[in-house]
Amino acid sequence: MDPSQRSYHMTPDEFRRRGREVVEWIARYMEQVESYPVLSHVRPGEILDGLPATPPVRGEPFEAVLRDLDRIIIPGITHWQSPSFFAYFPANASGPAILGDLLSSGLGVQGMLWSTSPACTELETRVMDWLVEMLDLPRGFRSDGDGGGGVIQDSASSAALCALVAARERATGLASNRAGVTGGLTVYTSAQTHSSVEKAVRIAGIGTDNLRVVDVDERGAMRADLLERAIAADVESGALPCFVCATVGTTSSGAIDPVARIGALCRPRGIWLHVDAAMSGTAALCPELRWIHEGVELADSYCFNPHKWMFTNFDCDCFWVADRAALVNALTILPEYLRNAATESGAVIDYRDWQVPLGRRFRALKLWLVIRHYGVEGLRHHVRSHVELARELAGWIAADERFVLAAPPPLNLVCFRHVDGDPATSSIMERLNASGELYLTHTRIDDHLCLRLSIGGTWTERRHVERAWRLVGESAGRIGPDGPVPGA
Amino acid sequence: MDPSQRSYHMTPDEFRRRGREVVEWIARYMEQVESYPVLSHVRPGEILDGLPATPPVRGEPFEAVLRDLDRIIIPGITHWQSPSFFAYFPANASGPAILGDLLSSGLGVQGMLWSTSPACTELETRVMDWLVEMLDLPRGFRSDGDGGGGVIQDSASSAALCALVAARERATGLASNRAGVTGGLTVYTSAQTHSSVEKAVRIAGIGTDNLRVVDVDERGAMRADLLERAIAADVESGALPCFVCATVGTTSSGAIDPVARIGALCRPRGIWLHVDAAMSGTAALCPELRWIHEGVELADSYCFNPHKWMFTNFDCDCFWVADRAALVNALTILPEYLRNAATESGAVIDYRDWQVPLGRRFRALKLWLVIRHYGVEGLRHHVRSHVELARELAGWIAADERFVLAAPPPLNLVCFRHVDGDPATSSIMERLNASGELYLTHTRIDDHLCLRLSIGGTWTERRHVERAWRLVGESAGRIGPDGPVPGA
Repeated sequence: MDPSQRSYHMTPDEFRRRGREVVEWIARYMEQVESYPVLSHVRPGEILDGLPATPPVRGEPFEAVLRDLDRIIIPGITHWQSPSFFAYFPANASGPAILGDLLSSGLGVQGMLWSTSPACTELETRVMDWLVEMLDLPRGFRSDGDGGGGVIQDSASSAALCALVAARERATGLASNRAGVTGGLTVYTSAQTHSSVEKAVRIAGIGTDNLRVVDVDERGAMRADLLERAIAADVESGALPCFVCATVGTTSSGAIDPVARIGALCRPRGIWLHVDAAMSGTAALCPELRWIHEGVELADSYCFNPHKWMFTNFDCDCFWVADRAALVNALTILPEYLRNAATESGAVIDYRDWQVPLGRRFRALKLWLVIRHYGVEGLRHHVRSHVELARELAGWIAADERFVLAAPPPLNLVCFRHVDGDPATSSIMERLNASGELYLTHTRIDDHLCLRLSIGGTWTERRHVERAWRLVGESAGRIGPDGPVPGA
Repeated sequence: MDPSQRSYHMTPDEFRRRGREVVEWIARYMEQVESYPVLSHVRPGEILDGLPATPPVRGEPFEAVLRDLDRIIIPGITHWQSPSFFAYFPANASGPAILGDLLSSGLGVQGMLWSTSPACTELETRVMDWLVEMLDLPRGFRSDGDGGGGVIQDSASSAALCALVAARERATGLASNRAGVTGGLTVYTSAQTHSSVEKAVRIAGIGTDNLRVVDVDERGAMRADLLERAIAADVESGALPCFVCATVGTTSSGAIDPVARIGALCRPRGIWLHVDAAMSGTAALCPELRWIHEGVELADSYCFNPHKWMFTNFDCDCFWVADRAALVNALTILPEYLRNAATESGAVIDYRDWQVPLGRRFRALKLWLVIRHYGVEGLRHHVRSHVELARELAGWIAADERFVLAAPPPLNLVCFRHVDGDPATSSIMERLNASGELYLTHTRIDDHLCLRLSIGGTWTERRHVERAWRLVGESAGRIGPDGPVPGA
């Protein structure tokens, strides 16, 4: 055989065999994930030390990799898919999403331009339009309406950056892209807005000195009256307010900003309103929860993350704009090597102009599989059950004199603290997380340390939430394992 | 059964079964990909029209999805994995990469912080250090050296943006993050630098007026003398040069900028030098090709894309910095809800501070599987064979009087044109791409339209390159199917 024809590639047949092994490995992982300590307790450097310092010169058998996965990697995993993972946000993966992503890897296409794989673009357009209907978002976000449209981003951080750059360019008539930011632009968030917006303000060259952090009310929602005052003061002093980020479901406590009032301030002043509904947006699948989106029709852009609470693997942020021209004008560049007839016809969408990077994966596949597998009905069912569990848990907390509920949970996030103050709350969290039985994180609300218990894991059932509450109680040290347990 | 316990989830057992079906689908796709028309010829809207206008209320059987994949999606796919795909860049996927990504989806972890899955961070650190050795990159890029380190980004576009923001902040002592960009900063690329750098200049608020586009020599490489002059002129007029992007392997023609000379200009002036080796960097796996990296030890940052030419599925850009503090200082923000003991100890890496988004997938898994499956030796073997095929093809072109070789191909990208000028070259490309037999794209070099033939597909063998050349010849209309075919 010609030595130049020698192949080290995994053949399709070997892929068949190894692929089955990996599928089996994942199926077993799903079956066993409940039995693992939720939070990894390795010390810094421990995983690193278990890995060879130098790369292999010769290829190794696949068995060795799977063995090391169990032996070296698993101990360093914090199990986001555990039914007792209540930290941060659910990141609820699912079979259809995993398989959708696998198909995307298998096809290995690049969706930077329509022409580089038309199906990659058009399935995305279709699924994003479906989601407008599923969440009952404004019709103006649809791609077949009045110039709006949706695109999948990796994360709400990137969506915020794109929205901010579009806002900056709209406010300056594309002059910032050309001449650079020249000062005077101001941006508004609340004290509870996700840190990604501040990060975007830095990256986009606007600067945190020009970021106005508006105070929140007792529920953690932006105070529209203070926003109005801040905008007025800036206009008075000659600044150019260009961007407001309102949040539907803050990271800290799930608070919902008064989008309608904020929109009423932004619209007449030509200020770009971006709505970040990263975790909470999913709730709007259920008609009875759509009140969270009141006023969203006044937004210039909106995003939510199916990779948080809609059974879709990271990364998948759905981002819509009411005026796609504003976004595309801010982000498009067409070098010679990307020119093609379809783009020049104007009849197609090139999603590269809707995002920071040029390249893009076929991420719509996983969303397509999720929506088709569950159906709107199935998704609603699970979202409802999470919200119901959060309400029940909130009830148990409110009825327990050792704990203070930070606020009634609007949706699936419950924040609470121990009456004895921060050290008690902190020690409960540390003991629980060290136990490996569950994992939850914290935040500060009204200057109190609070525990955040976020419900939405794919495998999380009522019994896991009941157990979590029992463990919280035990950790508080007042009731033993035989004490009264709500719901038991 | 309690209705709240009803589940629409795909059970682990169903995942097992469906997972095998999807693996089988992909294995068959790999076996058949050669038989598909490489470039999809659907018309705009055709795929969209094949998809229901409204989402399914009820869940659908998995069979229906696989059926629609074949029926609706496949016709709209441009087959990047076809052995006759010679357009843009190879994007060569492989079995181990696909399975690494599948494992990442199955684990479903978030690697934003070390503490959110230590193995996700530490495997990345280890693999990035391996790659420093594999490509013989400067030791200063290693994480265990003098403050450097590597991180996986989605794309070279994002890496360029991060590098630019770090450069901007280093040049202004973090004042731009605080006060916004205030003008005076200048950035330098060549006329052949990838458009992502110009996009980054816009996003970062520096503005294209402050981007100096330095002319290239006859090979398409940046002219260091002109760069020096441009920098001097800007300094003279009071500007603050902060960033130069040098390219190792331009998108257009694979030209290699004189990094050593450029670095010698940047270093004493404190200008951040970023080296973009997106496609070509992979070549440095082979000691005899490491000349492409001459001078890289003078770079502040460097990136290459395993998702282009190292058998790793998109997205996977490897990005290193010599001084990670400069990067982290520019991008870090620590809100309360992300505080944790490991971060505060300073003993761990939190990769969220090395990138634009907060969230991140476990992308190191696919790189780990690729490196272990192929071994350094296997990777080298395939890279060498691609470079050798490109050289042979260039020889055939040079020997054919109907064609002009734009330049000797430094690595795996061959650019050439028809002697009769742009219309002839253009019509060859259009006929070839319309035929479905192969896919190649174009560029402009010295104001001539040139065909770009990029060799590096996982399944591309000598016979595919021979056949491509035969088809180019036939399309040129001078030799028929029975004419002389090199290598045949």
